[in-house]
Order: sequence, then structure tokens, then C-alpha cells
Amino acid sequence: MKISIERASLLKAVSQAQSVVERRNTIPILANVLIEAEGSDVTFRATDLDIEVVDKAPAQVERAGATTVAATTLHEIVRKLPDGALVTLTADGATGRLTVEAGRSNFSLATLPKEDFPVMASSEYASNFSAPAPVLRRLFDKSKFAISTEETRYYLNGVYMHIADADGGQTLRCVATDGHRLARIDADLPEGASEMPGVIVPRKTVGELRKLLEDDEMKIAVSVSETKVRFATPDITLTSKVIDGTFPDYTRVIPQNNARKLEVDASDFAQAVDRVATVSSERSRAVKLQLDEDRLVLSVNAPDSGAAEEELAVAYGDERLEIGFNAKYLLEIASQVDRENAVFLFNSSGDPTLMREGNDQSAVYVVMPMRV
Amino acid sequence: MKISIERASLLKAVSQAQSVVERRNTIPILANVLIEAEGSDVTFRATDLDIEVVDKAPAQVERAGATTVAATTLHEIVRKLPDGALVTLTADGATGRLTVEAGRSNFSLATLPKEDFPVMASSEYASNFSAPAPVLRRLFDKSKFAISTEETRYYLNGVYMHIADADGGQTLRCVATDGHRLARIDADLPEGASEMPGVIVPRKTVGELRKLLEDDEMKIAVSVSETKVRFATPDITLTSKVIDGTFPDYTRVIPQNNARKLEVDASDFAQAVDRVATVSSERSRAVKLQLDEDRLVLSVNAPDSGAAEEELAVAYGDERLEIGFNAKYLLEIASQVDRENAVFLFNSSGDPTLMREGNDQSAVYVVMPMRV
Repeated sequence: MKISIERASLLKAVSQAQSVVERRNTIPILANVLIEAEGSDVTFRATDLDIEVVDKAPAQVERAGATTVAATTLHEIVRKLPDGALVTLTADGATGRLTVEAGRSNFSLATLPKEDFPVMASSEYASNFSAPAPVLRRLFDKSKFAISTEETRYYLNGVYMHIADADGGQTLRCVATDGHRLARIDADLPEGASEMPGVIVPRKTVGELRKLLEDDEMKIAVSVSETKVRFATPDITLTSKVIDGTFPDYTRVIPQNNARKLEVDASDFAQAVDRVATVSSERSRAVKLQLDEDRLVLSVNAPDSGAAEEELAVAYGDERLEIGFNAKYLLEIASQVDRENAVFLFNSSGDPTLMREGNDQSAVYVVMPMRV
Repeated sequence: MKISIERASLLKAVSQAQSVVERRNTIPILANVLIEAEGSDVTFRATDLDIEVVDKAPAQVERAGATTVAATTLHEIVRKLPDGALVTLTADGATGRLTVEAGRSNFSLATLPKEDFPVMASSEYASNFSAPAPVLRRLFDKSKFAISTEETRYYLNGVYMHIADADGGQTLRCVATDGHRLARIDADLPEGASEMPGVIVPRKTVGELRKLLEDDEMKIAVSVSETKVRFATPDITLTSKVIDGTFPDYTRVIPQNNARKLEVDASDFAQAVDRVATVSSERSRAVKLQLDEDRLVLSVNAPDSGAAEEELAVAYGDERLEIGFNAKYLLEIASQVDRENAVFLFNSSGDPTLMREGNDQSAVYVVMPMRV
């Protein structure tokens, strides 16, 4: 194999690939990236056996071929090369080394045979559709904070992407929860998606996917089977196993009849919660909300360190209510609001509370109260 | 005590004070900041028993007094208050609480008696002089990287600030070394400093001092005794114990007769070292320099991961030389060069190497070679 490639293209492709590689590997080849050159393209493939990413970049291919080399070392080298450099990669079967040349720099890297690289089995996908990058970005960005980190509840360690029935017909929906809070985000059903099986997209995949979604103009090709999900742009293909488990019936958790409505500026609310939580103990982080006629008092009482109280002018017309929450959870859901006021719907101090942005039903958050 | 103070002044004063406070304290009062209000000023005092910082800020003092309160909590609260807020601090002897009020926020913080706060004993200083902030900044910034972190060699855990004889007479000098590399930085002798006893300024003090030196126009009042050093601006006084030990005779380490001169662009050199070091093993980080007529070849050979080589055009007129260094040490000294080319003076591959900026003798670095 011998190719020449512009440093910027190389860096972009290798960056995306190497981020999938786990830092600590017991299987040496999993630390490597598979480089394959053919025609006028070079592809960089990396995997952790659950996720596979393939990045394509245009290159001048002098001699087609393939090899594998340590992903982080290659990435570090390319990152440190001067901007604008032309990089030549040469794999010489005889020495078993990959030579990286640019200007007066010359690197010779250990390789492992390309045949040993585990390529993910190709699958039949039950559903193929395409969705604009900003739509997927919103679905995952607004839900991922609620992903559980408890390994025992592995079926909550991802975002449940599925088709659901909503008021206006079918919707593409992402749900995540850790039992304490829940996010349910809806988007218009993309054409051809109605038969998509519901899948739990693992946390790491959500993180990797995010990098494909930066470009507002990009259309993402999505393919879903019972066991795998694939997201692709013209240059990058991200394939991931999905979590083999059943996502719980979240609909029962979302309160339908919460009638006590509080409307508050989301940013003012978040800042006030953040301030009063300063004195809360590291462990409980409990904030009390006292609601009265158009008035919200946030307070924290921590015997050791002190007490804090802050009043906010709000819209609230129902009867007096006292309810406690984990400050972190309140901050997280308040920070999801980017357009309008935050609307909270309470029932009693022991019942789950619902939050949404204004009257928008397409992003709904649920948070469990705590005793204060 | 009751005072009103502008949030920005309060934040600045509390920030500087709380940074001295150690995160983990077995003595509760050391987590606190002592607030003392009198006249038209409020002072914030924090200590870890080795360093004491006192910050003064203008305030409207309604009722003079003093109390102590958790430094990080107070800092967090003030940081989160809206910009431009007027903050009222009230210490009520009866409740033993400090009330912090701003707008609609109200905090009540636990206090500890001001009498329990350990105030550093005042000292007689043998030498008092003043130096411009940029001069002190240069002395410490260019030497601190070489401070040792080995606790067994405690006398190397700081910067040795002393008066030395140089070519042009006496000089104010800072030296740091960890046995592998050494930095010796000179500055013009400030008026009245010639009798200053040499002191080893601890690493943490150097870090705290750095925050006093941002303003180019600032004059810093320096006071030195055998056991303590004090740096003061009109608002901030930083007092620190010095390391009770003898700094080794560093002059014997600085080679006087190294004759083989290499001149190289410091930035090109640093980038090349950084690149070839990418393939070096985590532990040794050894880079080989091969010098020949106006030519420098940097190389690394790591059996496991690979090899790297890079050539640089340099000025070198002496005989062939091969010498190895720790890449990290080379990078650190190369990054000290900010004006001119880096000039290296070698003797043999087993002898310490000297580096300076151009012909400037006021900043000299020594680095020990390693076998490659």
C-alpha cells in the first residue's frame, strides 16, 4: 500500500476512528485502525467489537493495499504534523512496518496483519430511512443526560429510539431514564421509518454519533435491525450493536393528570437553583420548592453548612405546595429549555413532576420528587 | 459585623483567599476564611499554616466586626451571584451565622469563632525591597518547571531566590532543579535587595504568587527573612514560610566549558521533538540528537511501537555528536525560549548540556543527557 493524503483530511478521518478505540485493550489488534486503500479513497476502520466506525477520505492511491497500525499513535503523529503537509503512508509487506512521511519527518510504525482485524458482520436492516442531522441531534442531545449509569440496569444504559403513537400520528421518539428522571423527545416521523424496530442505543454510541451531527445541512442515513443500528454520512459509517434488553414501559411513569401549573423563566430558575444548592450537602443535594400565588421560594437547609433561600416571581395560580427535588436533576432538565419558559406540572409533593418547554409536547421531562 | 460590597470586588478578594485553602482539612477552621471589617475596608484572610493570604477590598462598613466562614462555600455563592449585585454580609453574634444577601437571594452560613483562626506570627524581615511584577513573573515562570516533586529531596521542592554574583555585579536570581534539569534566571538587583538572605520559596507559594503578578504596571513589595517571605500589592499580602533546608551548590552543575554550539529555531525544534517523541515508550521518552555540519537529526527508536526520525537545518560547526535526552525535558526548556533562537552548548554525550536564549546569559538551563 502506498498513498498520499492531505494532512487535514487524514486528521479528520483518523480522529473519528481512534475515538472508538478503547484506551485499555486486552486484545492488541483492537488498539489498531485498519487502513484500506483502493481506487481514489482510503478508509480507516476502528472497532471495540460493539461499535465500528469507518471513515473515508480522498487520497492519491499509488499502490492499493491494507494494513493495521496503532490508532492513537497514528492520530498523535498526524495531529502534530504541520498544517498543510502532504502525508505519505507506505506499508511494506517485507518489513511489516507502516512508514509515515511528511516533509522531513519520517515514522516507521509496527503493524499487525489486516487479516486479524475483526470486521463487524454485515447485517440485514429491517428499516432504512434518512433524517436531517439537526433532528437527530435534538433527539439525542435532549435525552442523553437521563441515561442510567447503573450497570445492573443495563437496559437503561442507552437511549430508547423507537416509533410511538402521539397525538398527531406516529412519531420518531427517543427516551432515556435512570429511574429518577426521564426525558421523552419526539420528532416528525421520517419517510420510511414507520416499521423501525425499537432499539436501545448504548451511551458510547450516542457519544460517537454526536460527532456525525455537527453539520446542519447533513442528511444522515439511518438503518435499524433488531440487533444493530447504523448511522451514515457520505464519509463516515457508524455501526453499533444495540443493548440486548427490553426497555421498560415508560408511558406509565409520565403523569397525565398533573394539574398544578408553574411557569418560570428557565434561565432564572436554573441560576436560582444553582445558587441555593451551594450550601446543600454533597450527598443529598435536596432543594425545596415552596409554591404560592405567583411566587416560588427555593430553599436548602443543611444543618452542617447553613441555609439558603431565594424567591422568584413566577406564574402559579393553584393552591400552596411544598415539594423537594435533587438540585442536579432540576438543573439538568432546566438546561434543556432553549426557547421558552419552563412549564412544570405538579400533582402532590409525593408524585412525579412533569416539565416541558412552553406548550411544546414534543419534549417532555419527568423528575421524581424527594422528601425534604 | 455588617457590610455591603460590590459583587466583583468581593469575588476577586474571596477567590484569591480561598485558593490557599486546602481541599481536605483535618482542622475545621483551616477551611474557613477570616472576614474582618473596619473603617472602609474588609479583609479576607486564609491560611494553610504555611501560607497566609490577606485580601483587602473596599466596602461600606455599617458595623465593624469579624467572623470566619467556609471559604469554598462563600466563594461558590459569590461566583454564582449575578454580575453587578450588591452583597450584604451580616454576622449576628447571637445566632452564630453569617447572612449573605443579594437581591432576592439569602444565605445563612455556619461560622467558627474568629478567635480560633490561626493568624501567622508577624516577623522581622531582614530585607525589604520592591520589584516590578513582570520582573518577578519572569524569574518564577521560567524556573518553576524545574522544581522537584520528590518529597525526600524537600530542599528542591521550591525556587531558590537569592542574591548572586554575576558578570555585571550582583543579581537577583531564581534557581530550580530536580537533579535532571536546572533553570537559573537572573534579574537586575532591585534597590535595597543586596542583603537579602537566600530562601527556598515552596512550589505552592510560587503558584499563589503568580496571581499577584498579572498586572504589568504593578510594583510588588518583597520582604524576606531567614524563615519567611512576603509579597504584597496594595490589596493583597501573601506571606509564606520558606523551605527549611539548604539548597545545593548549583554552580558546580552548570557547565562552563561546553564548546560545541548548536543554534536552532526554538519553535521548530520543540515541534520536531514533540513529533518524534510520539512513538517513544511511556517510560523512557528518550530522543536521540545526531549533530553534523549544520544538520540535526532527531530520532526515537522504540522496539514495540516503531521508530521516528526528523531532520532540521541548524547552525552547527563542530564535530559529529550523538546525545540522548528525555523528550519532556527538552520540550520544557525549549518552550522557555520566547525571543531568539535556542543555543545549545554540548560537551560530550555523557555531560550536562547547557541551553540559553541567543546570547542572553540571564536565563540559563541545564539538562542531563540519557543513554540512548
